[in-house]
Amino acid sequence: MFGSKDKRGLSVSLDDIIVAQAKIRTLIPISPLTHSPNFSDLVGHEVYFKWDNKLKTGSFKERGAANVLLSLDQAARSSGVCAASLGNHALALSYHSAKLGVPCVIIMPSSAPLVKVQSTRATGAEVILHGNTFDEAYQYAQTLALERGLFFVPAFDHPLVIAGQGTAGLEMLEQLDSFDSVVIPVGGGGLASGIATAIKARRPDVHVVGVRSQWVMHARQHANATPQPLLPPTTIADGIAVKVPGKVTAPLLEKVLDQTIVVSESEIADAVIRMLELERVVVEGAAAAGVAALLKKCLPPHCKRTVLEISGSNIDMNVLSRLIERDMGEKQRLLRLDVAVPDRPGSLHTITGIIARTGANVLQVSHDRSFSHIPGNVDITFMLEVRDQLHKDAIIKNLADLGIDTRVV
Amino acid sequence: MFGSKDKRGLSVSLDDIIVAQAKIRTLIPISPLTHSPNFSDLVGHEVYFKWDNKLKTGSFKERGAANVLLSLDQAARSSGVCAASLGNHALALSYHSAKLGVPCVIIMPSSAPLVKVQSTRATGAEVILHGNTFDEAYQYAQTLALERGLFFVPAFDHPLVIAGQGTAGLEMLEQLDSFDSVVIPVGGGGLASGIATAIKARRPDVHVVGVRSQWVMHARQHANATPQPLLPPTTIADGIAVKVPGKVTAPLLEKVLDQTIVVSESEIADAVIRMLELERVVVEGAAAAGVAALLKKCLPPHCKRTVLEISGSNIDMNVLSRLIERDMGEKQRLLRLDVAVPDRPGSLHTITGIIARTGANVLQVSHDRSFSHIPGNVDITFMLEVRDQLHKDAIIKNLADLGIDTRVV
Repeated sequence: MFGSKDKRGLSVSLDDIIVAQAKIRTLIPISPLTHSPNFSDLVGHEVYFKWDNKLKTGSFKERGAANVLLSLDQAARSSGVCAASLGNHALALSYHSAKLGVPCVIIMPSSAPLVKVQSTRATGAEVILHGNTFDEAYQYAQTLALERGLFFVPAFDHPLVIAGQGTAGLEMLEQLDSFDSVVIPVGGGGLASGIATAIKARRPDVHVVGVRSQWVMHARQHANATPQPLLPPTTIADGIAVKVPGKVTAPLLEKVLDQTIVVSESEIADAVIRMLELERVVVEGAAAAGVAALLKKCLPPHCKRTVLEISGSNIDMNVLSRLIERDMGEKQRLLRLDVAVPDRPGSLHTITGIIARTGANVLQVSHDRSFSHIPGNVDITFMLEVRDQLHKDAIIKNLADLGIDTRVV
Repeated sequence: MFGSKDKRGLSVSLDDIIVAQAKIRTLIPISPLTHSPNFSDLVGHEVYFKWDNKLKTGSFKERGAANVLLSLDQAARSSGVCAASLGNHALALSYHSAKLGVPCVIIMPSSAPLVKVQSTRATGAEVILHGNTFDEAYQYAQTLALERGLFFVPAFDHPLVIAGQGTAGLEMLEQLDSFDSVVIPVGGGGLASGIATAIKARRPDVHVVGVRSQWVMHARQHANATPQPLLPPTTIADGIAVKVPGKVTAPLLEKVLDQTIVVSESEIADAVIRMLELERVVVEGAAAAGVAALLKKCLPPHCKRTVLEISGSNIDMNVLSRLIERDMGEKQRLLRLDVAVPDRPGSLHTITGIIARTGANVLQVSHDRSFSHIPGNVDITFMLEVRDQLHKDAIIKNLADLGIDTRVV
């Protein structure tokens, strides 16, 4: 029924993706594809977004999950399915399992974002938190699948999953007459290899770009380092934080990607904010990685019409709030100021008066007696919300002109 | 050319709105209208969103501004226009003025959100910050218009503006075959009276709901109170914070609104977060007011297909970040805990060890020696990020079981 290698010897062919599209259409609507005037202005060529984050569970993962579920025979569907997931795959599989009446068990690492754990449980799936990393959860899920006789659905490394994700590529070809480039985030590579396989088969001239996170590249290089770091770093693009390349996806990616762009955590963080500001849309780190790649403006000059796959929106609100605050700091909208004043009644009031007149908003105040930078004084540290660098400079000058000793910290 | 009263004696007729639609079509695309499965599930009937926040400057205000600009004769266009605005009207007018080569001066109250001041300046308009309230800025703008010979473009209280905003209503009728109710935020009332006039003229059976903020109702009642409060309260729905009803809009609203729903600041704040979580879209407070009204589920039972006008997206990122944090507190995702420990080396480490094992994330730590609630001890206050109420309870129990004195603050 499936798995016939295509003529180039690849494990997923255009035909497989066409079959997947016919199957999943009953479960999954075509996601919107729209032009972005704001991003087009920003990067200097036409930019289109493919909004897979608009699918019901907030990510493209529904495509592959639905394709697997609809390819199982009745016996397998009755026994149920099992998966290990960082979140989106879990949500997608459990949602469509519930729709089709298939029992579903999800193993997540204990570090999975809360929003994903909770929403997966809400679909009715059994969620088991096991291990600290994706790899540990993955091992356990395979063991459990054997024990309970469940069909193990890989998050990316399976031809049916790849063919399912590839339907996003077919939709792009149907929705937009002409485009010359496509940008896709790469984690395990299911999405990128699927979309690229579909597009390259029909339009070999389209320039296909995969986007990887620097965090993952680094993690892969140091996977066997000893000693392992005491506090392992985290990434905001958890959706593409896959440390082991796929056995099925890796050879596919090698054939179908024309370019790989690597983006840093800080570029991803900026891209999340740009999407909030310019598109008024919440995207998760993995999707923002694609946006970040676009903003680096390193596509070949012949690329004038680019489609960007917006893979998902499931970002923890708390993470979003931290990224906004970080961005305010970057934009000179926050000023942290140490003010040395005599330690007596009225000192704080005098300073707050000056700050109020400058129009800055006080976010935090703390006092330090022991380590004041002027002996005998007290250091008051203010965290202020300001308009911009000019406003910042004006506040500092204002205080200095009044003979008040300040330090920006 | 304009202003002929319709047969009911109203100052804006369906014909005026049809004329406006023909005029503005060259400048403003039709904004999308989509079905929301998530909100439909939530409120128990079909919900459609009209995405006016997707217009270039992020709000519906472009409709009215463009209609005015395109109705001016060449002499008036050469002299230029002037407006007082809380933000969105400014952005809309200055953007389209720049497109049409019309000089534009904008007066904003000094309390206007920074994001709006900056984006208006970016269009090339002259922005003058004057007064603390909209009313003060408004007075000054009228004076300035006279002095400089500029055409004063009211934010809402003018038939051309109302007719322009009404084009959103015509679009709804064209985009959705059948709906039985429409929900529109009301500030000055330009948007609501425009949309309602269009819809009632064509489909008198549609139930039209205006949404007002409690904050405005309260502010109007206490407008002349003495003494005025030392720290006047602010609202997150600044787009509808209009204290004086319009002379043109008020009588219109009285005729065309079937129901008024009043929403509180806290309901608006919740609605902003629900839109982030369920639609993955950023909306400003005024637009969220409409969402909040819908979530109160007080539409008449015959309303089964509701269109909700999403009026704008221009919310300060900092405000958004605060609303997210507030929501985490509401959802029991934050725990503030006072822990009394002996004031000696290792105490903090012991407590952080217990907290780490419960899986909670430490956001803030502060020490208080002077006011410890157990004499001779030090109070350490932790701000923790937790999963939910159960997790919260588990942490407190864990500490208590180990004989550690804690208080939730």
